[in-house]
Amino acid sequence: MDTADSVLSCLRTLRGSIDNIDAAIVHMLAERFQCTRAVGKLKAQHGLPLRDPEREAEQVRRLRHLADQSQLEPDFAEKFLAFVIQEVVRQHASFPRITVNLERY
Amino acid sequence: MDTADSVLSCLRTLRGSIDNIDAAIVHMLAERFQCTRAVGKLKAQHGLPLRDPEREAEQVRRLRHLADQSQLEPDFAEKFLAFVIQEVVRQHASFPRITVNLERY
Repeated sequence: MDTADSVLSCLRTLRGSIDNIDAAIVHMLAERFQCTRAVGKLKAQHGLPLRDPEREAEQVRRLRHLADQSQLEPDFAEKFLAFVIQEVVRQHASFPRITVNLERY
Repeated sequence: MDTADSVLSCLRTLRGSIDNIDAAIVHMLAERFQCTRAVGKLKAQHGLPLRDPEREAEQVRRLRHLADQSQLEPDFAEKFLAFVIQEVVRQHASFPRITVNLERY
């Protein structure tokens, strides 16, 4: 096997792993949106606010810590969370909402 | 348990699942960047172009199909891939590159 073949073989192996990981992430994201849709419906039914800054700040702290432990750049983990939350909020905004906000929730 | 307690309990359960899924995704992303860093080094060492439009088009087709099968919006899966590739390209650009592009690779 010459150098070009060896490089291509290595590249194919790595790309195979990337494709497997992407498939796993897509399925994880699908499951995540199942959960957030249920959260969105619950919030809409009970007049709860779409966003919860305290919860989001805790998510950021937790994901940055997990990223740091697994050699992922914490800044990227935070950007990823913001990217996903943006989509969640877009989806939640489409749920019909009751007008009374139950402050005690 | 009154309605408010029941809603909060349901919300806590769903958020617990979301947190578990996020932890899994962060670890998957960490593993993905391990692979793409190896790809980036290989490309830099052998003067291969940073991006491969044919490979990226195939990734988009595949992820849209997987998303469709798992009830995730295909447009979101495509946006997610673009978001990750943007970060990969940013990281790859920082690797020292040889100047000769070996066209035959």
